[in-house]
Amino acid sequence: MPRTGRRPGTPGTRQTILDAARRRFATRGYDATSLRAIATDAEVDPALLVHYFGTKEALFVAATGFPALFSDLAARLRAGQVEDPPEAIVRTYLRAVDSDRSRNAILAQVRSAVSNEKAARMLREFLTAQLLSAVAELSGQPDAALRASLVAAQLVGIAMLRHVVRVRPLAGASEDEVVALVVPVVRAYLQPAGGPSPSGKVPA
Amino acid sequence: MPRTGRRPGTPGTRQTILDAARRRFATRGYDATSLRAIATDAEVDPALLVHYFGTKEALFVAATGFPALFSDLAARLRAGQVEDPPEAIVRTYLRAVDSDRSRNAILAQVRSAVSNEKAARMLREFLTAQLLSAVAELSGQPDAALRASLVAAQLVGIAMLRHVVRVRPLAGASEDEVVALVVPVVRAYLQPAGGPSPSGKVPA
Repeated sequence: MPRTGRRPGTPGTRQTILDAARRRFATRGYDATSLRAIATDAEVDPALLVHYFGTKEALFVAATGFPALFSDLAARLRAGQVEDPPEAIVRTYLRAVDSDRSRNAILAQVRSAVSNEKAARMLREFLTAQLLSAVAELSGQPDAALRASLVAAQLVGIAMLRHVVRVRPLAGASEDEVVALVVPVVRAYLQPAGGPSPSGKVPA
Repeated sequence: MPRTGRRPGTPGTRQTILDAARRRFATRGYDATSLRAIATDAEVDPALLVHYFGTKEALFVAATGFPALFSDLAARLRAGQVEDPPEAIVRTYLRAVDSDRSRNAILAQVRSAVSNEKAARMLREFLTAQLLSAVAELSGQPDAALRASLVAAQLVGIAMLRHVVRVRPLAGASEDEVVALVVPVVRAYLQPAGGPSPSGKVPA
């Protein structure tokens, strides 16, 4: 494995790493890509990637423009720092897709995934490794992973109908109107105990 | 409006109508397209369109390959012929997207909608006019239309994660596994009375 003499921190190094990461993730997928392989492609020391980005997940987020909001939320869910996970999940997601910049990044990935199997794989692997596993951990049910993916399906569908197909009244509904109806559903999916019947707090 | 001398039922007339319909729906959208305008484009008597296809909706389904299952279900919902609407909606939808032929037709429309505003509008208008209104009628709630669009969002998201991004375990789950978790959610959204708290039958 070549380690080149390129000095740490030369101007453009960060961008070189991002470019290499984007190519690797796009061609090999999320799981099969290592920081070491990206470092080799970028002709930099692997320690530099850690220095600039910390983790593979953070580098993926930076390279693909995937909203950092989501991986931040996943980290906070895992750390038990979120008081009401269903509401936090729905609000974080709506704020991300309702902001032009995040929405464009997400829609670019969805657009790629719809037309390109490699892009679909990259999105699948990232969603599974990062977001869905954190959500699934909230439920102690044996089918927790299926439940987490149905939560994701609800949210992905909301973005599709709200911002791509733009079906009314969902396209024009306020965050609070959507939250009032969707949070109980997410709560029912993620209910940690007491069987699969939807319940949970009733919105006021 | 020209009425040409083309005879009813010449070989190829049906295909000529379908081609004209596909062009009109794609360029003008569902709402703004009339049977009369398609007849003019196809240079046939409007009565022939009724003879071959019956309604504008049926012609849209035939022209775009949109699964007829959906419009059949919408008609049966409206006629009060469906014993358990939430389960019928989820099972009909899953069977449509789980069959290669219907799935390909749906994904082609989603792919177009993601990249093309005219295609998005056509899909939006058809969904709103035909499917969502039938689903919304099931709920007597003041926000019935929003609830119906959230049901649609749940289902569209399931197709995206099951067949496009192919997230496990949703991609590999059986129809019954998905039904067991999703039907109570659809039931909660469409609950005709008693407030927005999810409830309904508990799956065994």
